[in-house]
Amino acid sequence: MDVIMKYYVGIDLGGTDIKAGVIDDSFNIIAKHVVPTNTNRCVDEIVVDMADAGKTAVKMAGLSESDIIHVGVGIPGAVNSKTNLIILTPNVGWRNVDFIPIFQRYWDIPVFLGNDADAAALAEVYAGAARGYDNVVLLTLGTGVGGGFVFDKKIFTGCGFGTEPGHIIIVVDGEPCGCGARGCLEAYASVTALIREARLIMAKHPDSLLHKLCGGDDSSVNGKIIFDAAKQNDIAAQIIVADYVKYLGAGIASFCNALRPQAVILGGGVCNAGEPLFAPLDKIVESLIFSTGDNKITPILRAELGNDAGIIGAALFGKE
Amino acid sequence: MDVIMKYYVGIDLGGTDIKAGVIDDSFNIIAKHVVPTNTNRCVDEIVVDMADAGKTAVKMAGLSESDIIHVGVGIPGAVNSKTNLIILTPNVGWRNVDFIPIFQRYWDIPVFLGNDADAAALAEVYAGAARGYDNVVLLTLGTGVGGGFVFDKKIFTGCGFGTEPGHIIIVVDGEPCGCGARGCLEAYASVTALIREARLIMAKHPDSLLHKLCGGDDSSVNGKIIFDAAKQNDIAAQIIVADYVKYLGAGIASFCNALRPQAVILGGGVCNAGEPLFAPLDKIVESLIFSTGDNKITPILRAELGNDAGIIGAALFGKE
Repeated sequence: MDVIMKYYVGIDLGGTDIKAGVIDDSFNIIAKHVVPTNTNRCVDEIVVDMADAGKTAVKMAGLSESDIIHVGVGIPGAVNSKTNLIILTPNVGWRNVDFIPIFQRYWDIPVFLGNDADAAALAEVYAGAARGYDNVVLLTLGTGVGGGFVFDKKIFTGCGFGTEPGHIIIVVDGEPCGCGARGCLEAYASVTALIREARLIMAKHPDSLLHKLCGGDDSSVNGKIIFDAAKQNDIAAQIIVADYVKYLGAGIASFCNALRPQAVILGGGVCNAGEPLFAPLDKIVESLIFSTGDNKITPILRAELGNDAGIIGAALFGKE
Repeated sequence: MDVIMKYYVGIDLGGTDIKAGVIDDSFNIIAKHVVPTNTNRCVDEIVVDMADAGKTAVKMAGLSESDIIHVGVGIPGAVNSKTNLIILTPNVGWRNVDFIPIFQRYWDIPVFLGNDADAAALAEVYAGAARGYDNVVLLTLGTGVGGGFVFDKKIFTGCGFGTEPGHIIIVVDGEPCGCGARGCLEAYASVTALIREARLIMAKHPDSLLHKLCGGDDSSVNGKIIFDAAKQNDIAAQIIVADYVKYLGAGIASFCNALRPQAVILGGGVCNAGEPLFAPLDKIVESLIFSTGDNKITPILRAELGNDAGIIGAALFGKE
């Protein structure tokens, strides 16, 4: 018996690249095409390139456009899930863009729209680290802290505007955050915050191995160097890691207590640290989780899909 | 044309009382019966009294048991929403109780089970301050901080175990919380925390009006006295209120940013303070909300149903 496969296109709009891919029913990317975003262009020019990138991926997959059930698009910003309006995309410079009709001028196909962090969360649930789970919190630790919630295998969008898990407050009156508030999780658990704290600690430990690994220049410190130095028992690096884990752990525990997910998924380059990040994190989160007797451990897992999560998740927007 | 009304029984199990009521289709309580819980009895004895209280309310309403569609029961503790097992009720002393079969020995009727704070949230959405909203966060400010989430007009229970909105962490390494962690919202926004802070501030301001209103005895301070003194421009009381609002506001903003509810509902005696609590709270929360341009204001409303919320919400468990 022939199994008829269904195909979907996912398009991940980023500040640097437009990534388009064709996904099959098993969530595999069977063709991918990437073009630069060039954000200093008008909306229409970028949207044409998005449609073209998708069509190119379809050709590369050896398919025709009629084989594609729908296109899903992940946006790096706030999408009003009720009106489908793109409210704001800081890194692409869009505000109040009614995207779908513009896109359909260039490709007449059903289009579903969502936030890119939500797409990543959805991808990890259907095809990545959270396969088999229904209720998951994903946090992406990068320049900022993004993320998304999947409840009952569906993206949770609240009343629109986009959920912002990086902006729960974990230290009242704490570090200033880019959003204008103080003490947000992002101000402690982003890579930006990790580097900021690293420089403070390095200034207090001028003879640390961390300085040597940075060639004496604290402006070149990064997550990999910090975790490498900590592994070699450098006190300064160990303090930095312990502090980072403490704050990240408090944020994760907050989500665990309030939302009771089955798992928390962490993405972003800092996760490459592996065990030296995850082992102490498990311990701290376990100590902070509100227990009712049989729920003590919430697994904290590393995202598996990397850059492909945005494409796969976008393709899933209409499918969930 | 005759309209055929449907009736439901809600039973609210508390550490002191068992409250049972008959609700009609419009969420009105048409009869109510309250009996003491006497927690130092075995499970069966308490469950018999719960069933009897419900049946008595039915009689008082002039109805017969066959008029009742179902019974909903609100439990002051953790209920596993998947297995219907009562995991733990600290104030009644139950652990791992398979409630429904026991109840049905005494009243053979469909029974739905849930947490009492979830019941209150549901009641406010269907019949109280949050009528017309689908996505709401409710916080009850009492001895602790309880609460519940209603998403798409349904109780959100995560993967079971009961959501604990009072145990998001707002101050890493902060005040010890009854749950064993530090810095939880409950450790700053409960009435217990308000009184704790009041005594600290009073010790620093021995000539304050607050002392006079307490008859010179800081152990008799309570929320009403604090807000009364603040209204009369007592500096000590104003500091206490400002601090309380700052921490509570950070917790509310965390929920607003992460979950984007349409409204936040506050319950508990401290809400009787009215404007002097809600006006500064609105201001602080607005300053902390992550804005994408068109979402700046999330209304913070006062719960309307008081003690009846538990009965009405329990009756709604099977109906949502």
